[in-house]
Amino acid sequence: MCRMAGSICQTRLLSLFDYKTEKYIVAKNKKVGILYRLIQLSIIGYIIGWVFLSKKGYQETDEAIQTSVITKLKGVSVTNTSESGVLVWGPEDYVIPPQGEAVLFVITNFLETPNQKLGYFPLYFIYNSPEHLCVNTECALTSVFFLILRSNVLKTNDDSYLKKCRYDEELHPYCPIFRLGEITRRAGHNFQDMAAFGGSIGIMIEWDCDLDKGDSRCHPRYHFTRLDISSDKTVAMGFNFRHTRYYKNEAGESYRSLFKVYGVRFNIMVNGKAGKFSIIPTAINVGSGLALMGAVTFFCDMVLLYLMKKSTSYRERKYEGSGYESICSNFTP
Amino acid sequence: MCRMAGSICQTRLLSLFDYKTEKYIVAKNKKVGILYRLIQLSIIGYIIGWVFLSKKGYQETDEAIQTSVITKLKGVSVTNTSESGVLVWGPEDYVIPPQGEAVLFVITNFLETPNQKLGYFPLYFIYNSPEHLCVNTECALTSVFFLILRSNVLKTNDDSYLKKCRYDEELHPYCPIFRLGEITRRAGHNFQDMAAFGGSIGIMIEWDCDLDKGDSRCHPRYHFTRLDISSDKTVAMGFNFRHTRYYKNEAGESYRSLFKVYGVRFNIMVNGKAGKFSIIPTAINVGSGLALMGAVTFFCDMVLLYLMKKSTSYRERKYEGSGYESICSNFTP
Amino acid sequence: MCRMAGSICQTRLLSLFDYKTEKYIVAKNKKVGILYRLIQLSIIGYIIGWVFLSKKGYQETDEAIQTSVITKLKGVSVTNTSESGVLVWGPEDYVIPPQGEAVLFVITNFLETPNQKLGYFPLYFIYNSPEHLCVNTECALTSVFFLILRSNVLKTNDDSYLKKCRYDEELHPYCPIFRLGEITRRAGHNFQDMAAFGGSIGIMIEWDCDLDKGDSRCHPRYHFTRLDISSDKTVAMGFNFRHTRYYKNEAGESYRSLFKVYGVRFNIMVNGKAGKFSIIPTAINVGSGLALMGAVTFFCDMVLLYLMKKSTSYRERKYEGSGYESICSNFTP
Repeated sequence: MCRMAGSICQTRLLSLFDYKTEKYIVAKNKKVGILYRLIQLSIIGYIIGWVFLSKKGYQETDEAIQTSVITKLKGVSVTNTSESGVLVWGPEDYVIPPQGEAVLFVITNFLETPNQKLGYFPLYFIYNSPEHLCVNTECALTSVFFLILRSNVLKTNDDSYLKKCRYDEELHPYCPIFRLGEITRRAGHNFQDMAAFGGSIGIMIEWDCDLDKGDSRCHPRYHFTRLDISSDKTVAMGFNFRHTRYYKNEAGESYRSLFKVYGVRFNIMVNGKAGKFSIIPTAINVGSGLALMGAVTFFCDMVLLYLMKKSTSYRERKYEGSGYESICSNFTP
Repeated sequence: MCRMAGSICQTRLLSLFDYKTEKYIVAKNKKVGILYRLIQLSIIGYIIGWVFLSKKGYQETDEAIQTSVITKLKGVSVTNTSESGVLVWGPEDYVIPPQGEAVLFVITNFLETPNQKLGYFPLYFIYNSPEHLCVNTECALTSVFFLILRSNVLKTNDDSYLKKCRYDEELHPYCPIFRLGEITRRAGHNFQDMAAFGGSIGIMIEWDCDLDKGDSRCHPRYHFTRLDISSDKTVAMGFNFRHTRYYKNEAGESYRSLFKVYGVRFNIMVNGKAGKFSIIPTAINVGSGLALMGAVTFFCDMVLLYLMKKSTSYRERKYEGSGYESICSNFTP
Repeated sequence: MCRMAGSICQTRLLSLFDYKTEKYIVAKNKKVGILYRLIQLSIIGYIIGWVFLSKKGYQETDEAIQTSVITKLKGVSVTNTSESGVLVWGPEDYVIPPQGEAVLFVITNFLETPNQKLGYFPLYFIYNSPEHLCVNTECALTSVFFLILRSNVLKTNDDSYLKKCRYDEELHPYCPIFRLGEITRRAGHNFQDMAAFGGSIGIMIEWDCDLDKGDSRCHPRYHFTRLDISSDKTVAMGFNFRHTRYYKNEAGESYRSLFKVYGVRFNIMVNGKAGKFSIIPTAINVGSGLALMGAVTFFCDMVLLYLMKKSTSYRERKYEGSGYESICSNFTP
């Protein structure tokens, strides 16, 4: 009978600081041993090589970035028709809307119904394709990492850099100035071919920021794709819409001109992600890697205890008090 | 004294390939045994059933999709007022802006202040509601999965499909053509009721893509909701804004007409996520599931070692060299 | 020889419900014991304190929110020039586009080239800065949590609240009404200084929703930043674009006025995230935390088995059948 409960409690409390560690039995079985080490090495290799080095599993990723896109077109086009003579078109005439948004439409062809009388004008082609499109993306990465601003324009002291540079993936990744023909070419199409019936081009800018490596590792990548093309004939290729200009005559009566404008719609879409070291994903990846090691033990145990020659003997040693010995020894003559 | 250190090292090195496995004691206690198996089964069921089958825990999810929305309205409306007589309105007149963006405004009512003289015109109702709105969403899922394009328009060889189809959740989920009245009805409101003071309707398109199941498993789902409605009276219902048309008279002097236009503002919002098998989330979910199994052992140990009758005997066997026996045996007469 | 296989199978099946638990050896080494408990406590503290309480590791986070932004400007400005005399400007004149989108441009200065004849007009300053900007964000959090609508406007029964309130981080966080000068001031700039050459201001609204804590815990936070400023001179500060107004004379001939407008471009960007309790991240965090505990055992084992005085004796006890004793005892005289 234990009377001295206080003393026992004290002993129990002290035994909290006894270090308890699993007892192992050593199976001198090189086959299973090597199998175990091989699988263990694979898991360690997977965790370090794939999860941490390749996939940056130690980083928290933020995909919710906020972006502001400003576009500007430059260049003049000239049309020469029998009806209107020579007309000079500036961006203020051929870009809709003119204020430089992320979605912009460049008129390449139009059909005028003046004074809203029937009788269509012939198609007027704008011969010279506009010079270039400047896409200025201010990319604000926020939320987890306080406030960070990134721009796709090179930081330089050369005032005239943006005036003369043209985008080049290798040489000028931070010069967001494109010739329209170059954009459609990268999307796999010819600007002149698209001019007659218009089309829709997606300009996707992807930011991939590694905030652990400082400012220099935050690159914008550009993808260009034509959006109004499909493998079938359902959706008509091309892009057009109608708009009107309203006038009043001397008597104050309204009349209007209807324009059906064909052109290329450019849609600048920005997304991105930013990764930064964080203890939580690191702990999760290390922790679950370690747990998988436990599964290796389970698997190797199965091999050892059921597939090896001396499996019964191993079972006896591994499971103390299991009674495996007695079961079989009883039936062994 | 160990002199032959080399030999020992060799032995140690070889012992690396000895397979070491935890020694278990078997407690022939069916209560705890069944408890253990039940909890173990629950965890396995949770991992397989909930994490993997239901929540697709083996997939990496990408929520950063890039979308391009093109809208087009069709249909003609007629107004008949004493001041202006019969007027025919096309989309170029009643849609602002006319170029087919993701946010578009359909004029349903307006108030003109012509020539910028005071004296308001009466409200002009546009009697016939516009025919239909075509929402053409090109949805580009990018980043993790190279570049994938999805469209909410059915791939078909039938040229006239889009000319005659109307959206239906069951029958025509890939026909993004809606009657305006149908949109407001789905948002719980009547288009005619909204026409007088306008309103704001959100059209949310959600893409849920399972990239493991091929192209066919990438469905857009539509939600319609009225945004200018709240449970209280703070925010006035309705939607309107003012815009102007500028004219010049013969003398070259500018004058303008001010329009206060009421109407329904449609905002097409697209988001989505794409899941694809990835080894990392799989390993994390399996690993942490296995680790939870360890917690089961800990819990069942507590039951066995503290709540069972023969707990002292189990403790003695489990903890070799703990001195539990001696503590009590010393005090036992 | 085991003949009675059936009986053995039955015994094996029953042994499934024997509870097996690791055998531990107790090392009465208080140093390692305390080290083990300290690391164990640190991990528990990290899991509970950092992962769960601070970082809400029990929540699933949804960053894909859908937002609809409506803007409205109010206020009248007056310009007084020798050429045009006194002109009154309403928002319909100085806001482009007028329909209240997320990107809006406020004219602060312009240059007119009337009738498309050369000869520039002097810069006209709009003296009085527009009164205020109302940013009404309807924020629809979707996807994981069915459909949830949040607005950055206070829910109140006071009709006139929005008419008299002004945004204040502390007092009126749900009054999204700003004076333009206040916005630029918060972005670190003076509106009057920006008026001459324009500029670009980003208004970022971040939603941080804790859906476990009910409606009240879904706050919008505002950040204001100037986007057209950079540390170098590459990108010219300021913002301007050209637009045209088209007229017809009595003879039906078209002519136009070209405006180069300078002004402040406001870009309202909304993002956010919503967290809600979910069993999966909870299980992952608990599971990997438990697995890390396993690593502690491994580390403490290393200390015990290699750095402690009696390490050989511990090794002998921990690894049953390892032959460590025999290796050394053989060489010991």
